[in-house]
Amino acid sequence: ITSRLPDVGTTIFTTMSALAVQHQAVNLGQGFPDFGCDPALTAAVTQAMQQGHNQYPPMAGVAALREAVAHKIHTLYGHAYDAVTEITITAGATQALLTAILAATQPGDEVIVLDPCYDSYVPAIQMAGATAVRVPLTPGSFRPDFARIAAAITVRTRMLVINSPHNPSGTVWTEAEMLQLQELLAPTNVLLLSDEVYEHMVFDGKPHLSASRYPALAARSFVVSSFGKTFHVTGWKVGTVAAPAALMAEFRKIHQFNVFTVNTPMQVGLAQYLQNPQPYVQLPAFYQAKRDAFRAGLAKTRLKPMDCSGTYFQTVDISAVSTQSEAAFCEWLTQEIGVAAIPTSAFYGDGFDQGMVRFCFAKQEQTLQQALERLQKL
Amino acid sequence: ITSRLPDVGTTIFTTMSALAVQHQAVNLGQGFPDFGCDPALTAAVTQAMQQGHNQYPPMAGVAALREAVAHKIHTLYGHAYDAVTEITITAGATQALLTAILAATQPGDEVIVLDPCYDSYVPAIQMAGATAVRVPLTPGSFRPDFARIAAAITVRTRMLVINSPHNPSGTVWTEAEMLQLQELLAPTNVLLLSDEVYEHMVFDGKPHLSASRYPALAARSFVVSSFGKTFHVTGWKVGTVAAPAALMAEFRKIHQFNVFTVNTPMQVGLAQYLQNPQPYVQLPAFYQAKRDAFRAGLAKTRLKPMDCSGTYFQTVDISAVSTQSEAAFCEWLTQEIGVAAIPTSAFYGDGFDQGMVRFCFAKQEQTLQQALERLQKL
Ligand SMILES: CSCCC(=O)C(=O)O
Ligand SMILES: CSCCC(=O)C(=O)O
Repeated sequence: ITSRLPDVGTTIFTTMSALAVQHQAVNLGQGFPDFGCDPALTAAVTQAMQQGHNQYPPMAGVAALREAVAHKIHTLYGHAYDAVTEITITAGATQALLTAILAATQPGDEVIVLDPCYDSYVPAIQMAGATAVRVPLTPGSFRPDFARIAAAITVRTRMLVINSPHNPSGTVWTEAEMLQLQELLAPTNVLLLSDEVYEHMVFDGKPHLSASRYPALAARSFVVSSFGKTFHVTGWKVGTVAAPAALMAEFRKIHQFNVFTVNTPMQVGLAQYLQNPQPYVQLPAFYQAKRDAFRAGLAKTRLKPMDCSGTYFQTVDISAVSTQSEAAFCEWLTQEIGVAAIPTSAFYGDGFDQGMVRFCFAKQEQTLQQALERLQKL
Repeated sequence: ITSRLPDVGTTIFTTMSALAVQHQAVNLGQGFPDFGCDPALTAAVTQAMQQGHNQYPPMAGVAALREAVAHKIHTLYGHAYDAVTEITITAGATQALLTAILAATQPGDEVIVLDPCYDSYVPAIQMAGATAVRVPLTPGSFRPDFARIAAAITVRTRMLVINSPHNPSGTVWTEAEMLQLQELLAPTNVLLLSDEVYEHMVFDGKPHLSASRYPALAARSFVVSSFGKTFHVTGWKVGTVAAPAALMAEFRKIHQFNVFTVNTPMQVGLAQYLQNPQPYVQLPAFYQAKRDAFRAGLAKTRLKPMDCSGTYFQTVDISAVSTQSEAAFCEWLTQEIGVAAIPTSAFYGDGFDQGMVRFCFAKQEQTLQQALERLQKL
């Protein structure tokens, strides 16, 4: 058989992780922490299982968890979502993204994505029978280019996907950019799919500028987040979507017949854990310390670190050390230097190569130091 | 917005569960156990979390779990699936079903389902942009009607969905029926999606006749199962798919961009638990005892129990006690008698009403006895 995704191969993340294992490289490629979560969180899940929370949860998610999410969004971003009708718990952010796209589009619709972007967006759009329209962020700076976004909007445009803090670049949209987006979309019917899985990794004392902060954006947005990223449990596969009730009603129609519901013990455990006073408050500082340590080390190498205002990724300019393609450099770096990275070109539809690669710094200090020692050999 | 599933409402399971709570009825509606799982299973998950198995698992699933599944299928059904290329772990059976349908169909293809059928099949087909062709099982007996199935196959038929043991009826396909199916499909390119989530609930000493037992069926089949059903943890949302490598390659392309991966601690815990000597071997006897107790009690009521050769559902003929529709009877039964059931008509596309309702007997003895006492008042 030939599926609707004929061209899908192994992801760059899997490929580079395998190469890292093969060459005993320090794996700063695929984005995941090499440290554990708060033991109080696993204890809460254990308690949930022991208390018998092992059967189907409500379709939209465990009520206490949805309430905790609504409360958090209200506290941090000022928007009051109704926990009953406007929050849904998903099997990770990837499932949330596909489900939102399936809910919002009909075959033939267009969905705009901003290159470089996470590798599930375009296949999700293709699975829905819609057409992905790729608009590049400004090369080098990764800032949104509103003239190009505006030019890409047609009568068939149903949705725009944004992602701030941004994977892979580590850039964060500014207040001016969020307002410009709001203005751009105001006269249109274009929905917004805002991938905010790195919402708790915004640095330098800045607030996360969630789409939910901007009423005219919130009214047209699916806002996606991820407990996996936030609490260092990428394998738990629990995410969230917030959207106005009318959008959420359609989302749930698809969700119900995709995964139907999401792991009960993890939901109950997370709800319990979120009763602690704001366990996400210390996260920006936690990751900022890692960013600062990693950048301090990079300063002693010939790799040039780019802006990193958010996420757990640091993009570097490799032009001083390499004339190879990003992909060839990453392979060479893994094999010869012993550090795995991800080529930024893997996030572009056309493989655009600007001489930049991505490191993940969600790692223990000793892991980062070992990588930096090796990178200093460059 | 209007989604591709405009007509989806609240499922009958949710509706009847809510009504049961409202009227303090014994809930024999929605299919889930009211008892816990083996404490050794939750202990294995706790251990997995404590050992740090909290990050992304491999896309297709934890290797040890895939090996355990392949081993089980080989032992029980004689078919040797390759654990690396032919087994994938899913976020429950519902996600497996949608993903298989998305993988196998293109918009415009036809998929045949046999009414009455589980409520996710047809929406999943619609989500994929394919057309669901509903062929009824023989009214009253729920046996497959091969003449009608054969007549429904066209050049556009891409897939047939079967489900044995069968929800809602509790019937099980015979060896003769499986062979007839194999013969019917032999000259066609029709794929088989075999929903076998009740594989470990086949009674009276009979073996489960998995599609994987029949080489010519196995070669064209996605075989779906569910740890949630098997180990009394419906809320864990871990299922499995087995299929020949060529089919599985397409399945994984979709899976990767739907959920990407499935809860790591549950997978590691299940893999550990499956090292015990065949924890599924005692399941048929466990559920058969419940079936026998429930049927013995029903014999003292005016409800007529139909064949129940598998699943944890017992269908009864209500014609001696009611002239109402099945749906009206179920509401009345919940409100006035205090026992919730599911109308069989809810599993038909056209709401066909043959005067039969479904009880779930995956309940503790005292729950079943309380329900039976109430049903004796009928
Ligand atoms: C889902 S594997 C990749 C993890 C990730 O988000 C990334 O590395 O970009
Ligand atoms: C997923 S809710 C319904 C559970 C079930 O399988 C059923 O009752 O048929």
